Amino acid sequence: MSHGGDNAGVVGRKKDKVVVCRDLKEKIMPLLYSREDLEVVLWPEDRACERPWLLENIKGAAGVILVLGEKVNTEFLEAAGPNLRAVSTMSVGHEHIDKVEVTKRGIKVGYTPDVLTDAVADISVMLALMASRNVGETIDLVNRGLWPAFSWSPFAFCGPQLSTSTPNATRTVGFLGFGRIAKATLSRLVPFGVTHCVYSSRPTSKPDPVADAKLAKELNIQEVRRVSMDELASQSDVVFVLAPGGAETRHLINEDFLKKMKESAILVNTARGTLVDSDALAKALRERWIWAAGVDVVEGEPNVDQTHPLVKEPKCVVLPHIGSATIETRLAMATLAVKNLLAGLDGKPMPAPLIT
Amino acid sequence: MSHGGDNAGVVGRKKDKVVVCRDLKEKIMPLLYSREDLEVVLWPEDRACERPWLLENIKGAAGVILVLGEKVNTEFLEAAGPNLRAVSTMSVGHEHIDKVEVTKRGIKVGYTPDVLTDAVADISVMLALMASRNVGETIDLVNRGLWPAFSWSPFAFCGPQLSTSTPNATRTVGFLGFGRIAKATLSRLVPFGVTHCVYSSRPTSKPDPVADAKLAKELNIQEVRRVSMDELASQSDVVFVLAPGGAETRHLINEDFLKKMKESAILVNTARGTLVDSDALAKALRERWIWAAGVDVVEGEPNVDQTHPLVKEPKCVVLPHIGSATIETRLAMATLAVKNLLAGLDGKPMPAPLIT
Repeated sequence: MSHGGDNAGVVGRKKDKVVVCRDLKEKIMPLLYSREDLEVVLWPEDRACERPWLLENIKGAAGVILVLGEKVNTEFLEAAGPNLRAVSTMSVGHEHIDKVEVTKRGIKVGYTPDVLTDAVADISVMLALMASRNVGETIDLVNRGLWPAFSWSPFAFCGPQLSTSTPNATRTVGFLGFGRIAKATLSRLVPFGVTHCVYSSRPTSKPDPVADAKLAKELNIQEVRRVSMDELASQSDVVFVLAPGGAETRHLINEDFLKKMKESAILVNTARGTLVDSDALAKALRERWIWAAGVDVVEGEPNVDQTHPLVKEPKCVVLPHIGSATIETRLAMATLAVKNLLAGLDGKPMPAPLIT
Repeated sequence: MSHGGDNAGVVGRKKDKVVVCRDLKEKIMPLLYSREDLEVVLWPEDRACERPWLLENIKGAAGVILVLGEKVNTEFLEAAGPNLRAVSTMSVGHEHIDKVEVTKRGIKVGYTPDVLTDAVADISVMLALMASRNVGETIDLVNRGLWPAFSWSPFAFCGPQLSTSTPNATRTVGFLGFGRIAKATLSRLVPFGVTHCVYSSRPTSKPDPVADAKLAKELNIQEVRRVSMDELASQSDVVFVLAPGGAETRHLINEDFLKKMKESAILVNTARGTLVDSDALAKALRERWIWAAGVDVVEGEPNVDQTHPLVKEPKCVVLPHIGSATIETRLAMATLAVKNLLAGLDGKPMPAPLIT
């Protein structure tokens, strides 16, 4: 069975069990199946892995590939037992992983940052456009067969324009969180005529006005400036929520923030549902504090049905968390998840480590 | 009544009648009402002007402001009579105007180009993103309350990514028609990683490889190149239809063209419905010749209901011709339409003349 290289010396050794919580399909699974030193246990269905199946099969496993839905908590770690040495999540978020518990046990954890930056930046721009252009309402009109009865009038379905069109006009985009995805979103908006960028970062991070000025120069815009949450709300034509989730950032977008926004402003959330108080946002839209919103993530998802205040709100476009859902990106995420896992099992540095 | 300036000398003269086919609202109408030498006759409802009302009221008019829906044909011109000297359409399209007949009568015609370039470029980018990211299907899933039952899987709802993400990757965007809106759309796509641009123009226009090379350099992309329709189809990752409507360009996008496109390609039409054979496009989507489509215009609109093949097709996003529907753009179009009319009546050059 030995075939040299990394797998030398496996003769007679018990294979390492690897549990894979989602079928990564024909382009990716062979990366695992080709490793004869591994016993691959794959959740057989094309839907979320059931917890009892996972807790049963994780017993004695050396590694696991999982996604955001699967909690890596004490229950999981105790079910796995002491053999577990590598956890690989196919996600950039990691709030499903109890980092204290895995660290205690010396387990390595990998995740998939960076590779989804472009896909999420694309959808952020798309949602800003869709919200400003009333796409939720206009698609609904067409789908309900009401276009024939709709008569064109000069200002029907008009929304605020994302692009500047008049000379000397300005457009300010704001970012709550200013990491890779925010910067990729900003760069895409430059040819739309964005002139100013304001952003808020975690209070513990150090301001870096030199880097901000450098970025503004690179992008050929007038300003990139770190501001308070109040200024972020009051100055932005579009606010992009692109900060991490979790308890610390929960409901940073609340009634107070939304009340300070411009009436013509757009809110876009492509980060985590928990950052936005859904009831406050629905109220803001209903009462016209802001123009419209586009969200790819909602607190409590996927338990978001037609009775949810944001789904019911015509001025809110709601997508089912498809921010990274491009063929290219998901292949890259799956490949990186496998590479993280194999490196962790082989005692090598993971290409994208979260906990080493 | 005389108040000097342009309007000097109107004392005792019969007022010029001006018919306005859509209420241009409180920001624009005063530009007309303030002219005491004019009798303004306004269609009183916030919907399409009825033809009998128009034919009745146009009698003896000196000028008219109208939109795409109102045909300026022999019937209209005969109803108006010899007083008519200025027609102002609040549109960039002018297929509703019989240019031979108005020229014969020495009537000046103005339209509203340029001012809608940015709004239409924005929606062109938006539709490319929406089509590639399966937004029609995913919004529908949320609106039908199916998100809770949908279980995440690695490749669910994945589409081809508009942005390049891997090093050395290329992306080719194609344009059928390469005027202002096409160029504005192209410039917006550069930071998404577009590397090549191909386009087709009317056969009678002169190729200009020097201008193409200059544009490629300005945008910092590898190539801008005029190609045949066959090459446009086969090389483009996204084809944007941005040519004029009318008989000459009818069904340029047909089965033959669609069959030559890439399986992963997107078709976007934000120009005129007549350019695309709807049945052929529906077939191309159903049979997976191409990935998806986004259209803001449909042949035969607004008579496009749920039974229309494109509305029924899950891979097609259909919007009800809202390409120029931003507050900024429609105000600019309405302002320009009024300025064209007044210049025409005053015997001055129209700011945006179609027929002088």
